[in-house]
Amino acid sequence: MKNIPFATIERVAKYLRCLKRLDEKKVKVISSKELAEHTKTTPEQVRKDFSYFGRFGKTGTGYDVKKLARKLESILKTQKKWNVAIIGAGALGSALARYPGFKESGYDIKVLFDNDPEKIGKKISGVEVVDIKKFGDTVKKKNIQIAIAAVPKESVNELEEAIAKSSIRGVINFVPVTLNFKTRRKIFIIDVDLAQKLYIMTYLIKRGKGMK
Amino acid sequence: MKNIPFATIERVAKYLRCLKRLDEKKVKVISSKELAEHTKTTPEQVRKDFSYFGRFGKTGTGYDVKKLARKLESILKTQKKWNVAIIGAGALGSALARYPGFKESGYDIKVLFDNDPEKIGKKISGVEVVDIKKFGDTVKKKNIQIAIAAVPKESVNELEEAIAKSSIRGVINFVPVTLNFKTRRKIFIIDVDLAQKLYIMTYLIKRGKGMK
Repeated sequence: MKNIPFATIERVAKYLRCLKRLDEKKVKVISSKELAEHTKTTPEQVRKDFSYFGRFGKTGTGYDVKKLARKLESILKTQKKWNVAIIGAGALGSALARYPGFKESGYDIKVLFDNDPEKIGKKISGVEVVDIKKFGDTVKKKNIQIAIAAVPKESVNELEEAIAKSSIRGVINFVPVTLNFKTRRKIFIIDVDLAQKLYIMTYLIKRGKGMK
Repeated sequence: MKNIPFATIERVAKYLRCLKRLDEKKVKVISSKELAEHTKTTPEQVRKDFSYFGRFGKTGTGYDVKKLARKLESILKTQKKWNVAIIGAGALGSALARYPGFKESGYDIKVLFDNDPEKIGKKISGVEVVDIKKFGDTVKKKNIQIAIAAVPKESVNELEEAIAKSSIRGVINFVPVTLNFKTRRKIFIIDVDLAQKLYIMTYLIKRGKGMK
């Protein structure tokens, strides 16, 4: 299970999303060919990705959708529930606090942080907005491992400082800058670039067909 | 230039984001090794991806950051400006209308659509909210090619109908369902799954190091 490429993990998360949708539609069995079509990759790639994690199905009979989804979820999530904090209670942070997809996948938004006295103490979609100055203590008390960064560019320094001093293990970063934590502790960062999807879309539109 | 894998296009968009950041930091030249490190892939993959589009640099001297960014952008975007509509003026749609990264990349949010009389006619971040019933006409008049879907699950049918009847070429879909357009016209769909990033993060945290 060592040295699994990052791209494989990204694809496994895609396969999982696809399988959950199929399960909702009562699809029972899927071949690697069909799974590849749904997730815009090749059957060879699907089988290679799965080979990192052991054997998932018998050759020729396809995969059991529900079982495979459960297996992939256990690989990615490794525990039932994770607690998440959102930093920044502006438009994007508030929208993310309301996003139903997180809870459905077992990720609980426990708290929002902001530095605006107008926002602190209020609730957004049932989630309290707490002073960013109380970040470290709150994260500890609420057993939070992951932060979602959704502050304006100008507040990035304050965010970096709060995270560096806390016990946060990973950051999903929506701020269009490269985060830099002054700590020797390992903090994982995943950057989300919403404009990237538009770049891919305009490419698709201009090329028309001809995509594998 | 035929049959370029979808995964290559996704990576090209990642390279572009990385190069733009480096350019902001006044970095002039980058090797494929460095670019691979920044984007979590391998130097071989970087060179293979670029090989689809011709020669970008001389062996041994690295790539000119600014020139390469311009070249990749022209591949993905193929024209200076694209007009975009957001469907759904709720929390997520409004946040997306305010997201500065779209305009910076040359994608202009021209209009929001909603079916709520309370919202129609208002402006969000300078963008007018228009009745979804006027979708087709407005899209034509404002020369919009791309729609961002950000409605609640319950409004998906109305959204699908409006898009199917319009001249929209592609949809970036934030709604956690599989869209289905009743039209013979080709409409590209890119699904955005915000929970996917959390799955990848929890995998990284649990595995610790050991990622390629």
